[in-house]
Amino acid sequence: MKAIRYYGPKDLRLEDIPEPVVGPGQVKVKIAWCGICGTDLHMYQHSISDGPPTATEPHPTSGETLPVGVGHEFSGTIVESGPDVDTSKHAVGQNVAVEPIIGCNKPGCACAESHTRNLCSQFAAIGIHGGGGGLSEYVVVPQELAHILPANVSLEIGALVEPLAVAWRAIKLSHVKAGDKVLILGAGPIGIFVLKVAQIFGATWVGISGRGSKRCALAHKYGASAVYDASTGIDVVAETLKATNGRGADVVVDCAGSQSTLDTALKATRPGGTVMNVAGWTARPTIDMNLMLMKELVLANSIGYAGDHPELIQALADGKFDLDDLEALITRRVGLEEYLEKGLGALLHEKDQHDWAAGGNLKGYKYRPSLRSGHVSEEDL
Amino acid sequence: MKAIRYYGPKDLRLEDIPEPVVGPGQVKVKIAWCGICGTDLHMYQHSISDGPPTATEPHPTSGETLPVGVGHEFSGTIVESGPDVDTSKHAVGQNVAVEPIIGCNKPGCACAESHTRNLCSQFAAIGIHGGGGGLSEYVVVPQELAHILPANVSLEIGALVEPLAVAWRAIKLSHVKAGDKVLILGAGPIGIFVLKVAQIFGATWVGISGRGSKRCALAHKYGASAVYDASTGIDVVAETLKATNGRGADVVVDCAGSQSTLDTALKATRPGGTVMNVAGWTARPTIDMNLMLMKELVLANSIGYAGDHPELIQALADGKFDLDDLEALITRRVGLEEYLEKGLGALLHEKDQHDWAAGGNLKGYKYRPSLRSGHVSEEDL
Repeated sequence: MKAIRYYGPKDLRLEDIPEPVVGPGQVKVKIAWCGICGTDLHMYQHSISDGPPTATEPHPTSGETLPVGVGHEFSGTIVESGPDVDTSKHAVGQNVAVEPIIGCNKPGCACAESHTRNLCSQFAAIGIHGGGGGLSEYVVVPQELAHILPANVSLEIGALVEPLAVAWRAIKLSHVKAGDKVLILGAGPIGIFVLKVAQIFGATWVGISGRGSKRCALAHKYGASAVYDASTGIDVVAETLKATNGRGADVVVDCAGSQSTLDTALKATRPGGTVMNVAGWTARPTIDMNLMLMKELVLANSIGYAGDHPELIQALADGKFDLDDLEALITRRVGLEEYLEKGLGALLHEKDQHDWAAGGNLKGYKYRPSLRSGHVSEEDL
Repeated sequence: MKAIRYYGPKDLRLEDIPEPVVGPGQVKVKIAWCGICGTDLHMYQHSISDGPPTATEPHPTSGETLPVGVGHEFSGTIVESGPDVDTSKHAVGQNVAVEPIIGCNKPGCACAESHTRNLCSQFAAIGIHGGGGGLSEYVVVPQELAHILPANVSLEIGALVEPLAVAWRAIKLSHVKAGDKVLILGAGPIGIFVLKVAQIFGATWVGISGRGSKRCALAHKYGASAVYDASTGIDVVAETLKATNGRGADVVVDCAGSQSTLDTALKATRPGGTVMNVAGWTARPTIDMNLMLMKELVLANSIGYAGDHPELIQALADGKFDLDDLEALITRRVGLEEYLEKGLGALLHEKDQHDWAAGGNLKGYKYRPSLRSGHVSEEDL
């Protein structure tokens, strides 16, 4: 089969490799669509992480050295079941979105519980650390990581489930509830997804701050209560206090990860409120601990997802997301053979695509499933 | 009556002033014992805060300019009830511990709810910002802030209720539960109280790190599972991981507030665990946000207390604290007229007393009810 494989920084190759073989408890998925994430760009430009997999050192969980498959935001159709698969839950022909994080399964590790599988210190992400990838024709995955898509959810939307799950977990761990006022810092793809999920959790005011008119226009389109273009120098703290009767937001979600967004978050959160960080950071910020203390703030963090897909997919099935809105986030559809030039290449070199993808904070960070652009379809091959 | 009054830095005076008069909803308390807090030292050496009360600017909530009364950790006996007091709840002759924080009571402020009264941005603490003080013969306080002491709790222990409430709230907001493993950074008075409260909440392992053999000996005496003398350079992170099967503590409470304790806390907490800060800070630390993110840590804060006294006093009534242990924390008993020399003076100048009181982190911080030493009794006058 055809597959994009990662040999190291600046070295991605479209290759012909054998199809993967299903093992016990696994299903084989024919891939339909795969998103291109900021992590993919980071891998290409810099490295996967400071550690394995390398050409000589295998990843402790996947057991693989380079090259590895690429692409972790993907959907597809089950084409084969391995031994011990419960086919009442996963039948051939069903469409699935894949949750790509696999833990070490060692006794006592956080990954022993499905809702903290993401906290395994040796986790492997399919498409990053081995285990194949979404930028190929087929992949095999453990049954429990293949989440059945409901009839109303297309395979294209299915490839958005992975980054949506990032937003879902962040809002869930922020304990957003009906009537809450939420401020989001960063209007990239994850910021937009967080906005939609906050609304679903009952937030009645959702402000969002982002850089540039295009991103801000998108936030408007998605129903933000207020949009602040950070590139104009607007005082986001003052605006948030005005919008919340001087109290501050119940929850502020930092999707950017910078000294200025952290400072803004602490000031814009109400006493007793929560700052939720979903960003990776290029440098250690300083933090105003006395302000945190006097306001009894909670600074929480959410990384990826673990056990969040079923709730999210149920919300999709229940019509809680506007699927047309979601689909409008897809900026381009390209075939697997065009990936290097028109997928990754566009993100790196075309200004519009690049502005969208590069708004995050990628350098020096090993895993940030946060950016979205471009899709590859096996149907286009 | 006699009262210690604060005119400004280095200017405390023992004066004869009129007894306070009870207003509607207030009770008059004849003071028995009052603790000397690190905040008292800080007021004496530096200032109350950057803002009011000053000699010319009144505190917005207390309405008072300097001089103000001193002492906020006190117990006493109700001697008079004002109009509108529910005497079925507060009768003359009953012993009470006073919760000294008063909010602004403006609509929409956090202090509208009793459990976040401490988060009022204009709160006044009796004995700091006006409203009289515990280092006097009488004080009048709102009925709801006078908490009846049960029969088994002496007035001396009653004066410890205030700092104990700091520890109670910190552990409550940390969500410590049965079986948890808790690490405490700082073995001063608040660290010791946090240790006792963590045990009451069901922690089965409580490690504590402190500086110096005297403090460490006290932590041992109080039943810490492990005591690390930070002055020896011991690797507290490594020791905590060893003691927790490599996972880390469920909750780490920072009672010291320094770059090194924050770094230790983030590393010593298990994935998905909580770091609880109860310390004031002299400088903004840097924070390893990527470590926080990868472990999905929660950094929570707890300042003072609000609505915590009833639960705490019930625990005292139920015998959950060893009252002899608590009493052993009182280092000296001095009369009001000896306060300046043998109370405050001892804390400032006698090495043993000073070491105990000065372990915290007082500079540049306006309110830290965290240190304990010395008592004044009106019976000694």
